[in-house]
Amino acid sequence: MELHSFFNSSTSYRVRIALELKGVSFDYVPVNIRTGEHRKEAYVEGVNPSAAVPALTDGEFSLGQSLAIVDWLDTRYPEPQLIPAEPEQRARVLEVSQLISSDMHSVNNLRVLKYLDTVLNVTPEQKSEWYKHWVAEGMSGVERLLSKYGRLPWCFGEQPTLADCCLVPQIANALRMGCNLDAYPTSMAVYRHAISHPAFDAAQPGLQPDFVSP
Amino acid sequence: MELHSFFNSSTSYRVRIALELKGVSFDYVPVNIRTGEHRKEAYVEGVNPSAAVPALTDGEFSLGQSLAIVDWLDTRYPEPQLIPAEPEQRARVLEVSQLISSDMHSVNNLRVLKYLDTVLNVTPEQKSEWYKHWVAEGMSGVERLLSKYGRLPWCFGEQPTLADCCLVPQIANALRMGCNLDAYPTSMAVYRHAISHPAFDAAQPGLQPDFVSP
Repeated sequence: MELHSFFNSSTSYRVRIALELKGVSFDYVPVNIRTGEHRKEAYVEGVNPSAAVPALTDGEFSLGQSLAIVDWLDTRYPEPQLIPAEPEQRARVLEVSQLISSDMHSVNNLRVLKYLDTVLNVTPEQKSEWYKHWVAEGMSGVERLLSKYGRLPWCFGEQPTLADCCLVPQIANALRMGCNLDAYPTSMAVYRHAISHPAFDAAQPGLQPDFVSP
Repeated sequence: MELHSFFNSSTSYRVRIALELKGVSFDYVPVNIRTGEHRKEAYVEGVNPSAAVPALTDGEFSLGQSLAIVDWLDTRYPEPQLIPAEPEQRARVLEVSQLISSDMHSVNNLRVLKYLDTVLNVTPEQKSEWYKHWVAEGMSGVERLLSKYGRLPWCFGEQPTLADCCLVPQIANALRMGCNLDAYPTSMAVYRHAISHPAFDAAQPGLQPDFVSP
């Protein structure tokens, strides 16, 4: 099994955490999205028609989109299950995961920031304000959801779930970009708990083979 | 059961289609996101901590995020199942759904377009180019995925799935915004098939109680 990944991509980071939690061994295939490797024909035709990372390949099978990949891994390698089967718990996990994936991450990913830079010619200050605005919007929602429905030490109790796989990369990115996250103490408590876990540690950008320091 | 919805919200539209396909009766609770009703304290505290539409409420239970809602509906009202159980088919359905939800819709939704207008002061032409750029990026991916893995008349065969619930509102929005979609014939064939279906018809923005013409 191969994971097509970029060290600094938070969607790749989600899947790396899931693979590490499940103890599934995989080959790491670096795809440099900064230089556009994800748009090359061989990759789009042969690996991921979405032209994005991450993508998981396993023989003839190939799959893109991080949340779909974790769902597939749950079917194939059910221990530990990252999307709970119990309907209400499952709903809560998917709700937080989709909030992070759709409402927060996608507005702040590399391709959007590049568009702001190169097409709209925004200033560095405007780009930073944009980033912080969407982090604040999204984290406020996450914090309210976790305050209402969450249960520490993980987002939803004694075991990590897909919600933690999404939250940790998002918070790591926000910290790297200089966001102040003091207003989200529940989310930060989960983050601090998670990063000391061996699977979350092994998945961090700085430990990937394609890591380059900023 | 109540659906908190805005007629023109494509994420609300996804859930309306799912409810109609399953024949689940619900009360329609309009939430005007243009005037910020989704940010009012009573709504955020009592209905949806994400401060967004759609939200589904059922007695004490309340859930936001369209894909999480459809997953929950599948558990509660399994017929017809919109997220297939068979692992590979399931993976394909979730992949297309997440591509639309995360990579395409969220970059072009109302709050992002408002930010472009009011904070970055872009011109109407720049805003239109932004919208069309992300539609083209996303639809290219969807079209490649459907060409490779899809099976008409629906995205994935003889029955509609979550992928169709996501694709149809996205295409309807893109057409409304004047995008040219000639380059995506497979996606458009699914769209034309879908809109004649009674459930997809009943869910369209123009037939909702809060509809106002542009």
